Amino acid sequence: MKYEGLLKKYQKYLPVTDKTPMITLNEGNTPLIKSENISNELNLNLYFKYDGLNPTGSFKDRGMVMAVAKAIEDGSKAIMCASTGNTSASAAAFAARYNLDCYVLIPDGNIAMGKLAQAFMYGAKVISINGNFDKALEIVRNITKTHPITLVNSVNPYRLQGQKTGAFEVCDDLGKAPDFLSIPIGNAGNICAYWMGFNEYKNEGKIDHLPVLLGFQADGAAPLVYGKVIENPETIATAIRIGNPASKDKALKALEESKGQVNAVTDDEIISAYNYLASKEGIFAEPASCASLAGVLKLHKKGFFKGGQTVVCILTGNGLKDPTTSLAQIGPIEKIDATQEAVLKLIKSK
Amino acid sequence: MKYEGLLKKYQKYLPVTDKTPMITLNEGNTPLIKSENISNELNLNLYFKYDGLNPTGSFKDRGMVMAVAKAIEDGSKAIMCASTGNTSASAAAFAARYNLDCYVLIPDGNIAMGKLAQAFMYGAKVISINGNFDKALEIVRNITKTHPITLVNSVNPYRLQGQKTGAFEVCDDLGKAPDFLSIPIGNAGNICAYWMGFNEYKNEGKIDHLPVLLGFQADGAAPLVYGKVIENPETIATAIRIGNPASKDKALKALEESKGQVNAVTDDEIISAYNYLASKEGIFAEPASCASLAGVLKLHKKGFFKGGQTVVCILTGNGLKDPTTSLAQIGPIEKIDATQEAVLKLIKSK
Repeated sequence: MKYEGLLKKYQKYLPVTDKTPMITLNEGNTPLIKSENISNELNLNLYFKYDGLNPTGSFKDRGMVMAVAKAIEDGSKAIMCASTGNTSASAAAFAARYNLDCYVLIPDGNIAMGKLAQAFMYGAKVISINGNFDKALEIVRNITKTHPITLVNSVNPYRLQGQKTGAFEVCDDLGKAPDFLSIPIGNAGNICAYWMGFNEYKNEGKIDHLPVLLGFQADGAAPLVYGKVIENPETIATAIRIGNPASKDKALKALEESKGQVNAVTDDEIISAYNYLASKEGIFAEPASCASLAGVLKLHKKGFFKGGQTVVCILTGNGLKDPTTSLAQIGPIEKIDATQEAVLKLIKSK
Repeated sequence: MKYEGLLKKYQKYLPVTDKTPMITLNEGNTPLIKSENISNELNLNLYFKYDGLNPTGSFKDRGMVMAVAKAIEDGSKAIMCASTGNTSASAAAFAARYNLDCYVLIPDGNIAMGKLAQAFMYGAKVISINGNFDKALEIVRNITKTHPITLVNSVNPYRLQGQKTGAFEVCDDLGKAPDFLSIPIGNAGNICAYWMGFNEYKNEGKIDHLPVLLGFQADGAAPLVYGKVIENPETIATAIRIGNPASKDKALKALEESKGQVNAVTDDEIISAYNYLASKEGIFAEPASCASLAGVLKLHKKGFFKGGQTVVCILTGNGLKDPTTSLAQIGPIEKIDATQEAVLKLIKSK
């Protein structure tokens, strides 16, 4: 059967009414890739949910399709967010397709242009303010409260509704719930969405147990781990560089309910997992995504897993999203004579 | 049913034997996205086959999975290609996953490092030679003839066998063959693969007609259009910057059999289609991919289509593959005071 997007596929579980437009960019339906090599090394049944193969390259499309559908249903002609990353790309893509204006407020200072290029391509109207991210979000909140413009930052509750479909797909593909779900934590919305999805499937009798949640934050941006707001979060994993997560309380509750835990992984561990994932499994995910694998590797070293368990690592974004980091991994390239002999000699020396 | 990759899904149509390992990166299964806006403007039933959502970001994964499976079946421990682009990324990913060595020969001179970063991430051994691309390919051909290393450039016939699955997916999703298939032409292999796929489905009775093929080359790299080898091909669409296509004769035959045609589109037309596709449909494809849409727009202007026909544009690669070109599209960003009033004033002026 032809795949027609998340809203149609999981309509029954989503806040879809007779009036909700069934919009789609064919988001979701991303592969659950079985580990070929790392599985054996860890003695686990390891899988990677590669959400970087969503249409705009990140899991954000799952929530955005729902948020934009409801915005259209409510008569909105424009959407707005404060973002410098994956959210703006996803919002802009759906806005382009469904003829909404899309306003992206970006904070002052160190903007990675690469992260904005996508939103520009999709035709977003990008506005730079003389202020930080919190100020940008405050303005977005105020304007969208009093104007016919829909806020599509993650405080929009429809975002998590759409994101929970990730849990459905994992269970549909596995034929059961995994024993452990490993997931990066930034703004902490996605872990809540997965938990909601697993619980809904359990209540429907689609799965017979809930997974244990394993959340991982970057060590320089780990407010849940350290139990306090991080004023100036720093990590190479920009997509989870958040010091005061919007869904903090809800995430802590989900972790507790699942008998799970949240831990920190260092930037070195993240980059090591990033290279390991690509060179052992042929999967190229953005650094933030690799916090999930880095965390599993760390817990494994501590003897956390008893072996043979089913573990799913959520890979939230495509490695192509962050060319700066991948370019930095290029080693020296040997340059040799254009002869068969020179090439063979080099190969044999390796 | 869980998707298990192209070799399993289309086993019946592929050179798969009892001894072929059913390897996969969950390649294929890419979305056929219905046009929301351009369709109406052109009065066509327009679809985009977005092959940029393959695991390494391009259609090359379709052919590489087959080529690498046969290499493993034949006892090969290493694969080799001359490439600076999508082929090397795909080869390196499958090699990483299935524990083969992967050697990538790159020519001297102007190498776009971004295009190589992916292959590096996947652990390919990159060798730079003091010579051009033709010389690199010659060395690869010679070494793979006399050593237990498999050539995975497009002259490997299994590549086209795998690539023909693109045609199967288009027909499976549409429930029929399209009236027209619009496709970029670089090395001219993909158009041959699609033609092979459509013919096999027709012979099986899966479709009742064959599409008309519409091939498009970049004007600075259009050997099929101009009927001669282009010594120094030039175009912004690097993935189709090829002056002497390997599958030239076969492609011309397919075009003739389908009563199709090959035309050139300029770089301006390609970049215009690239922006149009993103800002009208929310789909971000690499410039070479957009030759297919640029071509349809050009033919439409000439009154080629009578209206109402089903047209599928093949989008071969992900826009994230080419950050240089997308960054160049960023316009000036207006910077304003961090107040609600300033933001509203700017919005209203747009």
